[in-house]
Amino acid sequence: MAPPDPNDPGLLSPAQTSLLIDQYELAMAASYHRRGMNQTAIFELFVRHLPPQRKWLLAAGIGPALALVEAMRFGSPELEYLEGLGFERPFLDALAELRFTGDVDAVPEGTVVFANEPLLRVTAPRIEGQLLETLLLNQVNFQTAIATKAARLVLAIGAGTPDRDGRLIDFSPRRAHGVDAAVKAARAAAIAGAGGTSNVAAAMRYGLAPVGTMAHSYVMSFEHERDAFVAFMQDMPHNTVMLVDTYDTLAGVRHAIEAARSAGVPLHGVRIDSGDLLELSRGARRLLDEAGLPDARITASGDLEERRIEELVSSGAPIDRWGVGTDLGTSRDAPAVGGVYKLVADRAAGGVWRGTLKASPDKATIPGAKQVFRRWSGTQMCGDVIAAADEDVEGTPLLVPVMRGGRRVFREELAAMRARALSELEALPAGLRKLGGEAERPDSYPVDRSPALRSLANPPKVDG
Amino acid sequence: MAPPDPNDPGLLSPAQTSLLIDQYELAMAASYHRRGMNQTAIFELFVRHLPPQRKWLLAAGIGPALALVEAMRFGSPELEYLEGLGFERPFLDALAELRFTGDVDAVPEGTVVFANEPLLRVTAPRIEGQLLETLLLNQVNFQTAIATKAARLVLAIGAGTPDRDGRLIDFSPRRAHGVDAAVKAARAAAIAGAGGTSNVAAAMRYGLAPVGTMAHSYVMSFEHERDAFVAFMQDMPHNTVMLVDTYDTLAGVRHAIEAARSAGVPLHGVRIDSGDLLELSRGARRLLDEAGLPDARITASGDLEERRIEELVSSGAPIDRWGVGTDLGTSRDAPAVGGVYKLVADRAAGGVWRGTLKASPDKATIPGAKQVFRRWSGTQMCGDVIAAADEDVEGTPLLVPVMRGGRRVFREELAAMRARALSELEALPAGLRKLGGEAERPDSYPVDRSPALRSLANPPKVDG
Repeated sequence: MAPPDPNDPGLLSPAQTSLLIDQYELAMAASYHRRGMNQTAIFELFVRHLPPQRKWLLAAGIGPALALVEAMRFGSPELEYLEGLGFERPFLDALAELRFTGDVDAVPEGTVVFANEPLLRVTAPRIEGQLLETLLLNQVNFQTAIATKAARLVLAIGAGTPDRDGRLIDFSPRRAHGVDAAVKAARAAAIAGAGGTSNVAAAMRYGLAPVGTMAHSYVMSFEHERDAFVAFMQDMPHNTVMLVDTYDTLAGVRHAIEAARSAGVPLHGVRIDSGDLLELSRGARRLLDEAGLPDARITASGDLEERRIEELVSSGAPIDRWGVGTDLGTSRDAPAVGGVYKLVADRAAGGVWRGTLKASPDKATIPGAKQVFRRWSGTQMCGDVIAAADEDVEGTPLLVPVMRGGRRVFREELAAMRARALSELEALPAGLRKLGGEAERPDSYPVDRSPALRSLANPPKVDG
Repeated sequence: MAPPDPNDPGLLSPAQTSLLIDQYELAMAASYHRRGMNQTAIFELFVRHLPPQRKWLLAAGIGPALALVEAMRFGSPELEYLEGLGFERPFLDALAELRFTGDVDAVPEGTVVFANEPLLRVTAPRIEGQLLETLLLNQVNFQTAIATKAARLVLAIGAGTPDRDGRLIDFSPRRAHGVDAAVKAARAAAIAGAGGTSNVAAAMRYGLAPVGTMAHSYVMSFEHERDAFVAFMQDMPHNTVMLVDTYDTLAGVRHAIEAARSAGVPLHGVRIDSGDLLELSRGARRLLDEAGLPDARITASGDLEERRIEELVSSGAPIDRWGVGTDLGTSRDAPAVGGVYKLVADRAAGGVWRGTLKASPDKATIPGAKQVFRRWSGTQMCGDVIAAADEDVEGTPLLVPVMRGGRRVFREELAAMRARALSELEALPAGLRKLGGEAERPDSYPVDRSPALRSLANPPKVDG
């Protein structure tokens, strides 16, 4: 094996993500293997506490995560590395043959979820289920964080107003945490309702609309701003959105109008990246309208986040598109969703299901396979019940079969996930559509436990 | 070209990162290509404002980023996709042949940098330089954020005390933003002084120490905690750190001691993941010492961050290793480093260098190629001067040649980056080694501009 290169690009192939795993998963798996402890077990992925700035989460990342699960293989270099760490040959031989053969139930992407509700349930031989933990959490936690942030931005822009769909644009690749994050942030934003992304790789991979104008450096590369606009319009006649704030924003708008006349192309719009966005967008709108260009659109960008957007929208800023980078791509005010993946049941040697629970303070886990039932009042969601998976409870069950026998059985287009997300956001009770976090209204949405689970709510002390 | 799959794993190969690019970079490049505007230009990557919670940054991510730059290729699927977006054939032909041929100067990884100091300078044909912007920012911004967070954790643990090196352990893959983030977070943490990572893929790729114990679910998979410990010790005799807080922490420590005696193996230590870490670590230490195990180490984990660690360290908590996940992997209190990549000079047709600047409020860029000179007072850094690259200024120049003619010319081992980081952290003035952000002492470290640059500090109004 070649010695490690400290300057390796560090990008893993899907197969190499088999080792994107916490070391202890492998240690436990080796021990289970040595002892023949590989009965079917059930694991659930859920969030114990919402981030303080959030009232709900928009689930995302499950599709790409399950694609990686289906592709899971331990290759020769990985096995050789593990051998060097001291793992024994019989376990390595088992890893060489290992494929995921289990079942997964999950909420479809774009579903609103609350604390303690399972997003995903794995039923599989214990070793397989254990080995998925890190990868599933790595993918679902951050994509759910980004989708939730994007949904908040979409709500601030005015989701539900028919002409406001798709007004959020993902500008985040330069601040997202690496290559995978950038690609998945664009996807998560699209699920939440974004209308496009600046990220060409993500647009290609996931069929999103690539969006872009020009940078200030382009404008500065010409003697006069007007010359830069004319040149760009000549070279990119299908993409004539001009960045107008390099020098003086309203003068820039006039130059864009003049350039379009001189180049003989329609002016699609202008982008404003700095300054007083309310005043400047009003001034730009006035100039564009006076020039007979009511369809030319105004894009705003520059360190935007949902509270600032809400302020501008409620002040009537005539902004048509909102490019959001840093805050969207990192979910800056809540960059971590604390999803966990817990063993909730295993099949003892005698074939009896036995719930498991952890008694550490504040970290109790409800044993047994669970389902979430959502109740509706008209078109509004009005309360969830977490129940045993086989319990008969009123409401729509949120988890659906997504893998059976290691193969994916649930596929839908991004448009379907997006339609679900928008419909879920519209179905949120009014208080939950407002910005502000869980801390401000901790009891705003009722999530109850079914009678069967309530009987487990005060678990007996386990004798260690 | 196959239609996009909404559930694609979404992992890019190094070659595919050629399209990890903001759409406008390609639009501008196409325009430059059409106009023959491809003279040599200079771009610099720097941070205008430190995040409010930071007083300095620890530069990281440059090595993997340049490996990707060296590997940059536009393949057939990418070119076909761009053709579908309307890019013209001559530009696509140029992209098909494009390789990075320029020069890069950069600060070596593990260098402390401040606001406005260039971390990296690209001198290249304008189109090549332009096309690197998104990828360089995507890699350097977040890895610098994580390395900086890790350095703060290392300082809180007590860097500089000889026996405290390597006491930070990266536990972040389940909260890091995707696969690339998880792998690079482990690398960035190692540069900043971490002693190991739970992330096996990162350990393999970058030659780090893989670290792990067991999960609560392992303990719960046995009838009694003691049985679980005995089993794990028998199966993993080289890795006998027991997780003791599943039920009752101090009882767990006793069970670990008994299990080691019964299994006939040394007890390497215990891990405590919840509860009052000060009291529990003291209790655990006492029990281990009474059992004649002064070398058994105590690892703490569970939502730790640098302020909590500093509190525990100053209270004398006998904790030997600190496992940090969420806060390290997302740099939770400052998840975004706002690095930008700006054109600072281009060679006009006549061969004359001309500085460029942007006049938008608060976003002025100092024109011209720059160097940073660091001054020392004994072993302490005492002030930096940002100067023109060819200016003769007292101090150590921070940027060194890292690529020439498109090939990497600077390679060093991770140990060298780490030694630099620890020496830089030790060289920080005392006030800057304390936790707390830039906002608390905005003028704590002097970063001046050289006389040559000061004459450009109030740039003339550019006529747009």
